[in-house]
Amino acid sequence: MSTSDAAMHDSDVVAPDSSWLTEDELDDIRDRVPQVYVQAVPVRLDHLGRASHVGLLLRAMPDGTISRAIVSGRVHHRELVREALWRHLCKDLGPEADPQLPVAPAPFTIAEYFPEPARTGFHDPRQHAVALVYLVPVTGDCEPSADALDFSWIRVAELGDANVTAEMSSGHHRLITMALAHAGVHT
Amino acid sequence: MSTSDAAMHDSDVVAPDSSWLTEDELDDIRDRVPQVYVQAVPVRLDHLGRASHVGLLLRAMPDGTISRAIVSGRVHHRELVREALWRHLCKDLGPEADPQLPVAPAPFTIAEYFPEPARTGFHDPRQHAVALVYLVPVTGDCEPSADALDFSWIRVAELGDANVTAEMSSGHHRLITMALAHAGVHT
Amino acid sequence: MSTSDAAMHDSDVVAPDSSWLTEDELDDIRDRVPQVYVQAVPVRLDHLGRASHVGLLLRAMPDGTISRAIVSGRVHHRELVREALWRHLCKDLGPEADPQLPVAPAPFTIAEYFPEPARTGFHDPRQHAVALVYLVPVTGDCEPSADALDFSWIRVAELGDANVTAEMSSGHHRLITMALAHAGVHT
Amino acid sequence: MSTSDAAMHDSDVVAPDSSWLTEDELDDIRDRVPQVYVQAVPVRLDHLGRASHVGLLLRAMPDGTISRAIVSGRVHHRELVREALWRHLCKDLGPEADPQLPVAPAPFTIAEYFPEPARTGFHDPRQHAVALVYLVPVTGDCEPSADALDFSWIRVAELGDANVTAEMSSGHHRLITMALAHAGVHT
Repeated sequence: MSTSDAAMHDSDVVAPDSSWLTEDELDDIRDRVPQVYVQAVPVRLDHLGRASHVGLLLRAMPDGTISRAIVSGRVHHRELVREALWRHLCKDLGPEADPQLPVAPAPFTIAEYFPEPARTGFHDPRQHAVALVYLVPVTGDCEPSADALDFSWIRVAELGDANVTAEMSSGHHRLITMALAHAGVHT
Repeated sequence: MSTSDAAMHDSDVVAPDSSWLTEDELDDIRDRVPQVYVQAVPVRLDHLGRASHVGLLLRAMPDGTISRAIVSGRVHHRELVREALWRHLCKDLGPEADPQLPVAPAPFTIAEYFPEPARTGFHDPRQHAVALVYLVPVTGDCEPSADALDFSWIRVAELGDANVTAEMSSGHHRLITMALAHAGVHT
Repeated sequence: MSTSDAAMHDSDVVAPDSSWLTEDELDDIRDRVPQVYVQAVPVRLDHLGRASHVGLLLRAMPDGTISRAIVSGRVHHRELVREALWRHLCKDLGPEADPQLPVAPAPFTIAEYFPEPARTGFHDPRQHAVALVYLVPVTGDCEPSADALDFSWIRVAELGDANVTAEMSSGHHRLITMALAHAGVHT
Repeated sequence: MSTSDAAMHDSDVVAPDSSWLTEDELDDIRDRVPQVYVQAVPVRLDHLGRASHVGLLLRAMPDGTISRAIVSGRVHHRELVREALWRHLCKDLGPEADPQLPVAPAPFTIAEYFPEPARTGFHDPRQHAVALVYLVPVTGDCEPSADALDFSWIRVAELGDANVTAEMSSGHHRLITMALAHAGVHT
């Protein structure tokens, strides 16, 4: 299992609601239909709305590697996309993050994950998933959730640095590049 | 079963590829995770790119009612969103339609369908589905597929008419209104 | 002069910076090149980012009529679009409004104003103007500026009411409809 | 005058219609208000709508340098944005290009040009201009206009090459990167 699992890392296989699925059940469904995911690129803005920093989690991957990652997770059965975004942002960034969900429901892009790494460049060994990707301004204090090692705000000017890029699976780095292009930021 | 089934009508439960699922299997999965759908609003453009007509299918619904409908269908396991769009457009509009898939992968909006009619206004009694909705210019000749009664181009000025509206489930009419707002067309 | 002047009302002909122009100079330039405008539809959001209310100014028009209006104004020479948005939002909604400028610089639509009312449906008797139109969440307290009679938050469900519509020039009502379609709100 | 003039190169100072302005008049107006521009990134698509090539002009710049450039030009007084896009695409790519203007009037981004190179990274020594930037699929045969030396389709995989980048003013390369991010293409 590669570091690019980070792309679709989610800890909510066992969720505390009616969408509870065992690992076996989820594995079975993952072999039959594409899964719906949400992903969020957290950003700090200046007072004119320009993105100045991108928020990145640092996570231990199942294979023991460490990768920088954006917020990601499944949309549950009977859950609104906005509710899933809110749930994953609160879980990954902590209760004081105060994320500002987008006014428009259209994602700025979609990312299609496949078990074959080369098909789209977005790789998830577990499943075929379609992720709706949003840019989410965050104004509050972030503290990484229990399953993350760290959370850092990286200045947009540093996101092209080879060191930062090397810490990220290529899928995540590409989504950040696309998010900043959408935000009109030069990296 | 109401006419708003038209919103998510798809005839591809039994599909000729690896994503083959029996009705029972699909029903079971529909109770566990949200399904990924694509929807397309076919439009005729003038030479400056302005939408002049919207293409609407006329379909017999499972409950015996007849409704005007846009192009809709499931994304199969291991299928790209663009491949699903192409497949459903070709199936619903015929082999000579020549639909022009969007350059950008982001849908202009998403529609969230639930078994409860009032939750979002987008209703599908069978399932929770997340539809990526696209505006698709069509330049060729359209002929309705076997499971449609008719296909017509409606002038955008006529789309607000009560007669046309009455022929559509509210979800579809709302998506058309949103598509034309996105296209800058006044209805 | 008709009520649709509200569409492009701006009080900054005499601005306190280097872009100062006399009325005569501005009139002359308005006959030669299109003018760059920004327009903002102020919205209140719930915690999931859904638009619940639209903020509307009430303004005395030059011809003595009164119209509901969104925030509008010129982009000055050497001013960023974001700076112009901020300036007009602060001037029209007051210093405590706390408007949240969009992350992405792309407007959700453009509106092209012409002296001929029928050309695009966006009418400005003074000039040809191209307006970049944004949806702007506002979280603070709004107080109308000196040249407005009132500012009100209208619930989105009421925006289709004939009474509210009648109080607005058609251009503004259409922009609000387009903004709410973009926001996924059903009116 | 630097190679980045390419960013806003337009040969239509003397235009064959009512918006005729002498160089002196245009220079004067350029010192008073921002100018409205359109820019288009021509792309070739595969049958699923994915961008495979970007079309670039090669132009002799006023200072004698040569630069690759996208399609750019002023919006005339009383001209629709769509009309200006069409006029500049036909003039720069020839009468057989068959460009497909976007359905939606919203540009995928805006570019703000200033005489000061560092202000936004988009530089035009002549003026402050606000450009609406579009992604335009082109299906026909392109032949460069009289004032261009060449027109070439560059494969998207080659657009990151240092050689290609070096041939472009930074503003144009950045717009192409943003256009391809919008199109979901990895460069």
